[in-house]
Amino acid sequence: MYDLIIIGGGPAGIAAGIYAVRYGLDTYLLERTAIGGQIASSPEVENYPGFSSINGMELMNTFKAHAESMDVPIENRGVTKVRTEGKKKIVSTDDNADLEAKAVIIATGAKPRKLGIPGEDTYYGRGVSYCATCDAPFYKGRDVIVVGGGNTAVSDALILSNVVNKVYLVHRRNELRAAKILEDRAHSRDNIEFLWDTVLEEIKGDNFVESTVIKDVNSDKKKEIPIDGVFIYIGIDPNTGLVDVEKDESGFIITNEFMETSINGIFAAGDCRKSPLWQVITAASDGAVAAAKAYEYIRNNYDQ
Amino acid sequence: MYDLIIIGGGPAGIAAGIYAVRYGLDTYLLERTAIGGQIASSPEVENYPGFSSINGMELMNTFKAHAESMDVPIENRGVTKVRTEGKKKIVSTDDNADLEAKAVIIATGAKPRKLGIPGEDTYYGRGVSYCATCDAPFYKGRDVIVVGGGNTAVSDALILSNVVNKVYLVHRRNELRAAKILEDRAHSRDNIEFLWDTVLEEIKGDNFVESTVIKDVNSDKKKEIPIDGVFIYIGIDPNTGLVDVEKDESGFIITNEFMETSINGIFAAGDCRKSPLWQVITAASDGAVAAAKAYEYIRNNYDQ
Repeated sequence: MYDLIIIGGGPAGIAAGIYAVRYGLDTYLLERTAIGGQIASSPEVENYPGFSSINGMELMNTFKAHAESMDVPIENRGVTKVRTEGKKKIVSTDDNADLEAKAVIIATGAKPRKLGIPGEDTYYGRGVSYCATCDAPFYKGRDVIVVGGGNTAVSDALILSNVVNKVYLVHRRNELRAAKILEDRAHSRDNIEFLWDTVLEEIKGDNFVESTVIKDVNSDKKKEIPIDGVFIYIGIDPNTGLVDVEKDESGFIITNEFMETSINGIFAAGDCRKSPLWQVITAASDGAVAAAKAYEYIRNNYDQ
Repeated sequence: MYDLIIIGGGPAGIAAGIYAVRYGLDTYLLERTAIGGQIASSPEVENYPGFSSINGMELMNTFKAHAESMDVPIENRGVTKVRTEGKKKIVSTDDNADLEAKAVIIATGAKPRKLGIPGEDTYYGRGVSYCATCDAPFYKGRDVIVVGGGNTAVSDALILSNVVNKVYLVHRRNELRAAKILEDRAHSRDNIEFLWDTVLEEIKGDNFVESTVIKDVNSDKKKEIPIDGVFIYIGIDPNTGLVDVEKDESGFIITNEFMETSINGIFAAGDCRKSPLWQVITAASDGAVAAAKAYEYIRNNYDQ
């Protein structure tokens, strides 16, 4: 039986691995695809303190190298299910193994829902973004489109409007779902323009986004407008189907400040949990806290 | 009036500055002494994800360089008092200025209480430590002394006992203040030995700690024992006298997960707040969250 199994090899999982091994825990980290999580596909990260500007993949390679220098055992292996048997945790893998652990950290991340239109994947990180806190400064003085009508869309439109020249807020309906205070704030900004009953059809460009085709859903009339950035907020899906713990309405795992979930000995860290902010720095911090608390949990619940 | 004043230039304050400037806030960071906080005096840091092994001062220099690359205004200036005037915050400096801000982040850190014995300062970072989570792995297979009788002393003795050869737990009384469960756990470990009614008189060594002089407080008999490390847990003093917000019995500022204190618009981050873990990674994460929430607070409470 392992002391600790960590599921997911993004910033949260790797940080948890580094801390767990330092606590002397017999640890095993499983990552279904490639090490690094969502951030690894980001071309430029400017807000992980200590690295003024670094490619997301490179940053995650330094995390991985760090974990390897501490002998954190990391394997490329998917997990299908986490369940409990008494206080023991059973982690089922997609090669049909049942692994046993005293504690588990879920660090499986999340992914933004996509529009699924031409150009969206092509220009991801080159004009297409899902996070203003991450990327707003790259668009200083430029024109951007925000897609969505919820709180995140409007919040991030406000963040962008502080830095960019012009924000078009594109929404498929003629009213927002966002909180009234956010909507009022957005309406009061000179550089935010609302495009109601409108959807994006295509994102075009050369090396970088240059324009987007928008369609009026009432008239079906299309128009191509020049644009430097497209920020998409139509939802985020956490990868939390593998475990039955308390979650919010969107599927994010509910934890307390100790990263404890509703099941003793199962912890969650990073983008898969309901968090005040989803960033590399917060995910890594979550991972460290989860490992510290998993160590305490094991110490208090097992003879070791 | 500034949007945001950040007090303290350690990991929490600098991370807050990086995030605040990225949100477009007119920010001012004040640090009384040197940039970097406590960690800057640590000779080796192995647990800030992304840096396998780095000198504490060097790590903080990369933080500082990062902040400077984002044009975070940082000044060498002490703060004596933070108070409110309506919703406005007034920050008094030790050169008798009253600065105004819409929001304030307290990131003033903490310092471990010292024994005040010969050798303690000389060998800090070279055998003397105040944190097992930070430094335990450096003592793999070696012999260490833990000083103190509270929860942190015993918790950290347990962390150390997983990695080191032998732990002497030195306490000036003949019983612990620590929780029963921790004490029981410590008693069950073969490699933890209790030295009751004992105090440290001196720490000796060459380049690194080599021995310590202990004294039996009943008989006044002294003895020199060879030792590789001394971990001291006789209390931590947060630097929070400058602000009247809700604190715990030790003076740590109470916040929620958004880093909000009991006063609207005053946030706290890092070692000065009551936190599940005090590390560079958690402090930097606190700073990022505090900046994000300060940005939201300002957006919702001021016309901008």
